[in-house]
Amino acid sequence: MSDDKENDNNVYIGKRPTMNYVMAAMMILNNDKTCCIKARGRAISHAVDVAEILKNKFAKDAKYKDIRLSTEQLTNNDGKISNVSSIEIEISPK
Amino acid sequence: MSDDKENDNNVYIGKRPTMNYVMAAMMILNNDKTCCIKARGRAISHAVDVAEILKNKFAKDAKYKDIRLSTEQLTNNDGKISNVSSIEIEISPK
Repeated sequence: MSDDKENDNNVYIGKRPTMNYVMAAMMILNNDKTCCIKARGRAISHAVDVAEILKNKFAKDAKYKDIRLSTEQLTNNDGKISNVSSIEIEISPK
Repeated sequence: MSDDKENDNNVYIGKRPTMNYVMAAMMILNNDKTCCIKARGRAISHAVDVAEILKNKFAKDAKYKDIRLSTEQLTNNDGKISNVSSIEIEISPK
């Protein structure tokens, strides 16, 4: 995931309930800002769920502005490097 | 997932090993055709892995042409309707 200055507008998807992330993203959109949902590995499916629930139920004017896929290199505890896929879903309020 | 005529150029991601799907997609790209990787639910993460491995290791000229997210309604065995997220990743050979 790229470092950027708008970290406040990023929502990182982890293992919490889906609605937590939907609400976090909703608050960003309500401030008329573009929100970026980020996830890697198995959380990618979860990120797509969050984005779709947000767009279909809570922010019906919202649009997908950009969807980026990439690969990140992570170092395991035992020093091994592994490749992990990641997704960034940018959603604009209108 | 949208029905379309180019079904031969779709790769549906399921539970087989990642490389099976990478190779299937690779063959489509080698025929100079645009390939569409499709998945729903938890297979979405797997689809992103397939697309990234394909692009980074086997088809370095390939580009993401379009990435679409959507929601499909599926009917369970007991007649319940459930919403499932889906992804379509279009990859062009150049």
